Amino acid sequence: MNYYSEHSRFLLSVDVIVFGFDENHLKVLIGRRQMEPGRGEWSLYGGFVRNDESVDDAASRTLYELTGMRNIYMRQVGAFGSVDRDPGERVVSIAYYALINVGDYQEHQQKKYNVEWVKLDELPQLFSDHNLMVGEALKRMQQKIKTAPISFRLLPQLFTLTQLQRLYEAVMGEEVDKRNFRKRIKEMNFIEKTELMNTTAKRGPNAALYRFNKKAFKEDSNFKL
Amino acid sequence: MNYYSEHSRFLLSVDVIVFGFDENHLKVLIGRRQMEPGRGEWSLYGGFVRNDESVDDAASRTLYELTGMRNIYMRQVGAFGSVDRDPGERVVSIAYYALINVGDYQEHQQKKYNVEWVKLDELPQLFSDHNLMVGEALKRMQQKIKTAPISFRLLPQLFTLTQLQRLYEAVMGEEVDKRNFRKRIKEMNFIEKTELMNTTAKRGPNAALYRFNKKAFKEDSNFKL
Repeated sequence: MNYYSEHSRFLLSVDVIVFGFDENHLKVLIGRRQMEPGRGEWSLYGGFVRNDESVDDAASRTLYELTGMRNIYMRQVGAFGSVDRDPGERVVSIAYYALINVGDYQEHQQKKYNVEWVKLDELPQLFSDHNLMVGEALKRMQQKIKTAPISFRLLPQLFTLTQLQRLYEAVMGEEVDKRNFRKRIKEMNFIEKTELMNTTAKRGPNAALYRFNKKAFKEDSNFKL
Repeated sequence: MNYYSEHSRFLLSVDVIVFGFDENHLKVLIGRRQMEPGRGEWSLYGGFVRNDESVDDAASRTLYELTGMRNIYMRQVGAFGSVDRDPGERVVSIAYYALINVGDYQEHQQKKYNVEWVKLDELPQLFSDHNLMVGEALKRMQQKIKTAPISFRLLPQLFTLTQLQRLYEAVMGEEVDKRNFRKRIKEMNFIEKTELMNTTAKRGPNAALYRFNKKAFKEDSNFKL
C-alpha cells in the first residue's frame, strides 16, 4: 500500500569529505568529476543512495569504494537541499566527513579513483555546493576535536606531541600555546609516552613518540583539549 | 535531459522539534498523528518536501504552519535515513529544531494542530524515530547554548537571572553554580539589567529583570556560558 503516493520523490546522494593530515596541513581528498554534467570539475567523491540501503550505509559504501578501508571515523554533516544545487537534476545530498591517516591510504586506490590530497586552505572551486559542505564539515570537526579523541584518527599510531599540536592548530586555524597544550595532554593518561623516539626530524633533538591508548580512554574518558 | 534517471527516488520529509521553556522545564511540542499509518500516535510535526522548494524552505514552511510565527531560530539536526524508519513507505526525513518563547505561541494555533507542550523528560514513545531526533536535537542545542545567545529565544523579552540559569540547567541537564554563572553573565555586557522588577515571585524579594541587547551583542559577540 502506498500511503504517501501523492508526494514528490527525489534523487538522494551522499558526498564524503575525507580529511587527512600531512606536512602539518589539513588536506581533503578531491578528484575530477567523471560524469556529466560538470565532467572534469574538481569534486568531492560521492554516490547515489540505493533503495535498499540506509543513507548511512550508502555513505559507508561510498567511503569504502574510495578508500578500500574499514572502520573509519565518519559522521554526518547534514543535508544539502537547495533546489538548483546540482546542474543536472534536482538531487538532495547528505554530506559526511571522514578522518583517515594519510599514510594508510593506498596508492592504488588513489590512482583508481584519480583523487588527490589538496590542502584545505588551497581548495579550488568545487562542483555544486561542495565547498560549502567542506566548510560545514570543518566546523563539525572543530567542535568535536575539543571533546572527543578524533585527532588520533588523522595521525599514525605513533606520533610526537608536536605533530599532535600542529594537527590541532591546523583544524582550529589558530596557534596554540605549547606549554598549556602539553599541560592538558599530560592530564590525559590515555595519551601514552612510548619508549620510542622519532629519528626523522630534520633539526633538533629526537622527540618521544606517543600513542593513544583506546582501552585506557574507555576507562577514563575525560577528554578536553 | 535526465542525467541521473537510472537512480532511485525517495520521498523526503522534514520533522520539526519545537523546544519551549516553561515552569523551569524544557518542553517539546508534540501532537497525535493525523494520518495513516500510525494515526493517533504521538508525533513531531512534519511534512513532505515539495519539488519546487529547498529542504530548508520546506522546514520553514512546516514550522510556520504549526506556529504561525516568523523569524524563529531554527537549525538542521540532520538526515534520518534508515530503510524501515517509516511504517508506511520509505521516507528519508531531515530533522530541524526550533526555539520559541512559549508565551508567544498562540492558543488558536495550538488548538488548530492539536499539539501540546510536553516536558522533555516525560516524552512518550513517539512515531517512527522521532525520539531519536529529539535526542540529537538536544545534543545540538547543548553544544550551541554554550557559545551562542540562543537561550534568549526561549525566554520572554524580560527575564530574571534565575530564569536564565534554570533554562541553562534544563538544557544541560545539570545544576549550575549560581555564583560562577552570575559572574559569567556579568562579563557579557549585552545581557542588560533593566529598571524593571519581577513582582510575580511567590517567595523572596522581587528580582531584577534583564534583557538581551541584540545590537550590543553584534558589536561585542563574546559569548561564553
